[in-house]
Amino acid sequence: MTEFTPTYYGSYTNNTEDPALFETFKPKIAAYRAKLEAGILDKYALPKDALPQDPGSDVARVAEKVLTPDELAIVDTPAHQLVKQIASGRLSAVQVFEAFAKTATVAHQATNCAMELFPDEGLKRAQELDDHYRKTGRTVGPLHGLPISLKEHYEFKGRVTHCATVANIESVSQEWCSLVKILLDAGAVFYVRTTEPQSLMHLCSNNNITGKCCNPHNTRLTPGGSSSGEGAIVAMKGSAIGVGSDIGGSIRAPAAFCGVFGLRPTQKRLTMQHCKSNSLGVGEAVVPVLGPLARHAEDLDLFMKVQIGAKPWETDPSIIPLPWRDVSAPASRDIKVAVICDDGVVKPTPPVLRGLRHAADELKAAGAKVVEWKSFGVEELVTAVNCMYNADGNKGQKAAFAASGEPIFALTKNALSFGKADEPLLALEEHLLVQTREFYRERYLQKMLELDVDYILSPAYSSVAPKLETARYWGYTSLWNILDFPNVVFPTGLKCDPALDAPDTSYKPRNDIEAYEYALYDTADDFANAPISLQLTGKRWFDEELVKAAGVVHHIISA
Amino acid sequence: MTEFTPTYYGSYTNNTEDPALFETFKPKIAAYRAKLEAGILDKYALPKDALPQDPGSDVARVAEKVLTPDELAIVDTPAHQLVKQIASGRLSAVQVFEAFAKTATVAHQATNCAMELFPDEGLKRAQELDDHYRKTGRTVGPLHGLPISLKEHYEFKGRVTHCATVANIESVSQEWCSLVKILLDAGAVFYVRTTEPQSLMHLCSNNNITGKCCNPHNTRLTPGGSSSGEGAIVAMKGSAIGVGSDIGGSIRAPAAFCGVFGLRPTQKRLTMQHCKSNSLGVGEAVVPVLGPLARHAEDLDLFMKVQIGAKPWETDPSIIPLPWRDVSAPASRDIKVAVICDDGVVKPTPPVLRGLRHAADELKAAGAKVVEWKSFGVEELVTAVNCMYNADGNKGQKAAFAASGEPIFALTKNALSFGKADEPLLALEEHLLVQTREFYRERYLQKMLELDVDYILSPAYSSVAPKLETARYWGYTSLWNILDFPNVVFPTGLKCDPALDAPDTSYKPRNDIEAYEYALYDTADDFANAPISLQLTGKRWFDEELVKAAGVVHHIISA
Repeated sequence: MTEFTPTYYGSYTNNTEDPALFETFKPKIAAYRAKLEAGILDKYALPKDALPQDPGSDVARVAEKVLTPDELAIVDTPAHQLVKQIASGRLSAVQVFEAFAKTATVAHQATNCAMELFPDEGLKRAQELDDHYRKTGRTVGPLHGLPISLKEHYEFKGRVTHCATVANIESVSQEWCSLVKILLDAGAVFYVRTTEPQSLMHLCSNNNITGKCCNPHNTRLTPGGSSSGEGAIVAMKGSAIGVGSDIGGSIRAPAAFCGVFGLRPTQKRLTMQHCKSNSLGVGEAVVPVLGPLARHAEDLDLFMKVQIGAKPWETDPSIIPLPWRDVSAPASRDIKVAVICDDGVVKPTPPVLRGLRHAADELKAAGAKVVEWKSFGVEELVTAVNCMYNADGNKGQKAAFAASGEPIFALTKNALSFGKADEPLLALEEHLLVQTREFYRERYLQKMLELDVDYILSPAYSSVAPKLETARYWGYTSLWNILDFPNVVFPTGLKCDPALDAPDTSYKPRNDIEAYEYALYDTADDFANAPISLQLTGKRWFDEELVKAAGVVHHIISA
Repeated sequence: MTEFTPTYYGSYTNNTEDPALFETFKPKIAAYRAKLEAGILDKYALPKDALPQDPGSDVARVAEKVLTPDELAIVDTPAHQLVKQIASGRLSAVQVFEAFAKTATVAHQATNCAMELFPDEGLKRAQELDDHYRKTGRTVGPLHGLPISLKEHYEFKGRVTHCATVANIESVSQEWCSLVKILLDAGAVFYVRTTEPQSLMHLCSNNNITGKCCNPHNTRLTPGGSSSGEGAIVAMKGSAIGVGSDIGGSIRAPAAFCGVFGLRPTQKRLTMQHCKSNSLGVGEAVVPVLGPLARHAEDLDLFMKVQIGAKPWETDPSIIPLPWRDVSAPASRDIKVAVICDDGVVKPTPPVLRGLRHAADELKAAGAKVVEWKSFGVEELVTAVNCMYNADGNKGQKAAFAASGEPIFALTKNALSFGKADEPLLALEEHLLVQTREFYRERYLQKMLELDVDYILSPAYSSVAPKLETARYWGYTSLWNILDFPNVVFPTGLKCDPALDAPDTSYKPRNDIEAYEYALYDTADDFANAPISLQLTGKRWFDEELVKAAGVVHHIISA
C-alpha cells in the first residue's frame, strides 16, 4: 500500500463526448455568442476593417486608434494613481470607464478575450458612483470608479456562470463570489468577464462556448491560460486590474505570455468562496488561489490591500486573519536572489535564457546578491501535483462534460491524463503525496536559508508564449502551487527577437515531456515580439515582501 | 460516486494480534518498565504505604506529604509568576525543580501517569541553568527553570519515542520535536514524559507498555485521553505546564476530567514537526494540534507567547506567521456567549447540566450576555470526523500493531471502528467530507454572528470523568476538531456530588451511542469528587481573545 507510485501521466479514456446531445446545446451556445457580440457597442468599437488580420500581428496597441489623448492617458495611468485621481475629483468614474470600455471592447475584437461584455451596465454603475461622489463628496471605497475585469468562473449574481463548461451555459449565479463582492463594495466597476479554457486546466484558452483567445503581442501565439482573457485584456489596457485564479500557473502563464504582472498569493489569504469549477468536494492537497493581474507592481499591492483590508475572515473561516502589512521596498543591494536556469525537466528556450542572463547581470550590477539555485525534487513535485489535480479519477470533470456531451480538446485530454488520470486515488495515496509536499516545503525553505536568499528568480514557463493550443508542461509554475510559495510574474522589458533567439536545434532532450515542449519553439520568427517574462518567488506567507521586491527587481531589470 | 454515505461506525476486523510475536516483546516491555520504576527516586518519592489504596480514592493532594511549605508554595505558584521569580533571583531553578520533581514522582506513584521519569537529568539541567544565571546575571529564555511535562509521543532527541506502540519500544529519536526544542531553548526543564493510550485514540490511557493511568480526584475514574498522563500530572501539580496534543479531545478530555485548563489552539499556529504517530502520510481533513495544559489561564497565554514568539514559521513553512497578540481581558459585561446544553447526540449527565446551569447563572449575574445555542449538524460532523480519522482504512494503525502483534484494547477497537473503519476512503470521498466541514465552518461562524456572540460554552464531554476504559463518545470535543474552532477547557470549581447529581434513570436515549454513553453514569457515588469542567470555544484563529475570555469566564463561574 505504501508502495504507491505517482505517475506524471496516467490512462485517460475519452468517453464523455456525445455529438447528438451536444447538438441540443448548440442553439444555447449561439445565443450566448450573440449576446457577447451584442456587447460590442459601436461607440466603443473599432471598425472591423481597422483590425490587423495577418497571423502573427501585434495588436497590443490597436485600441489606441479609438482613444482620445486623454483616454490614452487614463488607461496608461496605474490603478493606484487612478483611484486617487478619481477620489480627488480630477477624473470622474465615467471618464475613466469610457476609456477602459473602449480598450476592452477593442481588446475583445482583436483577441476574443471576453465571454461577456456589458459596458452599458458598467457605464450606469460609473454614473451612480459619480452621483454618489457629487452628493456626498466621498467615495464608496478605495476602488471607487476603478474598471476591473473578471475571469468568468467567479459567481456573479444574476449572471450565468459556466466555468467554460457547456452544460452550465444557462446556470445563473444566485450569489456573489465573495472576492468579487469585496471589489464591488470597494467601488469597482464591472463590464467584462473574460475567457478561460475547457476544464480550466490548459495553458491556453479554447472552449466550446466562445472559442480561442489569442495573444495581443502576436496573434499566432496563445495568451496563456487558464486566466487567458485576463492576460490579453490587461496587456491591452482593457482594465485597470484583472482578476485571475491559479492552481498550476493560470494567473502566471497569461501574465508571462502577455507581458504583465501577475501575483499568485499564498493560499488562505484571499477568499475563494463561490468560485465555480467542475470539482466535486473540496481537495486540500493543492488548492486554487485568486490573484490580480496588472501592468504595475504597485497595483498588485493595491488589490491585496483592499481584499485583505475587507477582513474576509469575518465571514469566511478558511481565511487567515493576517493583515496586509505595509512593508517598504528593499534597496537594490539588499535583494538576495537565487536563480533557476533549468528545472531539470524541461530546459528553457533561448529567449528565456537570454532573459535570465540579462536579469542576473542587471541585478548584480545593481548590487544585489545573485546565486545559482540547483534544481531538486522538481520531477517528483510536478508528478505529485499532477496526481493531486485528478485525485478523483476525473469524475468531476467528466461528469460536467458528459452533461452536454461537448467535444473534448487535445489540451483537456492532456490535463485529464495528468497523474493517475481516470484511476481514482485513495485518500491514503493523497496523504502520501501531501507528505512529499511537506517534505519539500521544508527543504526548499531550508535551502533558501542555506543560500541566504529571500527570493528565487526563475522562468514562468520553459519558453515565451507558445503557439495556440500547444503548451503541455507547467512545471515552472505548478512547482510553486504544490509548495505554495507565492510568486510574482513580471515582464523583463525584453521581447523575443529572431535575430538573437534562434532555436537550439542541437539540444538533446532528457525525457519525453522535454522533447515535446522544447520542440514547440521551432522557429524564432513565429515567436517574434513575444514578451520575455520571469517569475519571482518568495517565502510562504510573505506576500507583502515579495510584491515589493518584485517591483524593485522589475525596475532594475527593465530599466 | 457522489452518493458516498459516511458512517459513524464501520466494520473493523481485529487481525493484527500475534501472541507468539508479542511474547518476544515482553522482555523489552519489562526493561522499559524497570527503567520507569528506577526513575522513582527515594529522595522524591512517597513511602509506598503512605499511598491511599482504596478504589475511588482522592489522591490529588497526596504529594503534599513530601513537600516542605516552601515547596508547596512553589507548586502552587502559577507558571507565569514562577518564571518571573526565577528570573529575579528570588527562586533558583533547582529549588523549583525539586518541588516539582517530588510532586511528579508522587503523581506517578499515585496514578501511573509517567512513561519516563528522569529527575536526575532534570536536576542537572536546573543546576546548569542556575550556573548560567549566576555567571551572566541572565536567563537563557522566558521559561528559564520552568519544569514542563511532555506527553510521550514528541520526538525527544536521544530517548525512545514509541507513541504507545509496542513495536516502537526501542526506537530512539534522532531529533527534537520542534515545539519541544522551542521550550528547551526557552529554558524549560524536562524530567518526565507522560502516558498515552494505544493508538493515541482513547479518551482513556491504557497501553501495552505501561498500562493504565487513573484520575487523581477519584482513582476509579479515568484521567481522560489521549494526553492522559498530562491531565493527571498537571492536576497533581507535578509540572508547571504540560504539553498535550488533540485531534478529537485529547487535550481537553484530560483537562476536563482532571479539573485543569487545557487549550486546543487553532491549527497551524504551533509547529507539529516531529510528533510521532502511527499515521501514514499526512492527512489534512482533520489535523492534530499541540497545546498546553495548566492550572491557570494565564499560563496558557505564556505557553503560546513563547511558542509563537519563537517564530516557528522561519523553519516550518506550514506555520502561519500570525504573531501572538497581546489582547486585554474582556470586562464581564462584554462577554457574549451561547450555551450548548445538549448536542443532540448524547445528552449531558446531571452533574454536567448542573455545571452548565451554574455557569449560565453566574455569567448572567455578572452582566454577560448568555443565549442558547440550538445544536445543529453535530451528528453529521462527528460522523464526518470519524471517517477522516480512519481514511486510510486503518492501514497505518494496523501495520504498527501488527509489527509487535500486541493485544488490542476494547477502546482501540472502538476507535478503529470509527467511520468506514477498515474500508479505505477514496480521495474524492475525503474531499466530500471536507466539503461538509467547510459548509459547517461557515454556518457556525454565521450563527455566532446572528446570535451576536463571541464564544460558545458547552460541555467538554457528556459527563464528568467516566470509569476507566469506558468512554466511547467524543462528539463534544471532536466537533471542534473538525470545525477547527479553538477551545479552552476549564474547571468550574464544582465537583460531582452524589447528593446533588443522581443519575436520571428515566431518560430515554435517542440512539445507540447515547444509550451506551449515558448509562455509564450509573451511580453518582462512584463519581464523587470528579471535577465538573466546561469548554469555551472561540472564533477560528482568534486564540488570543479566547484564552483571555476563558480566564474571565472561569473567574466569574468559580468565584
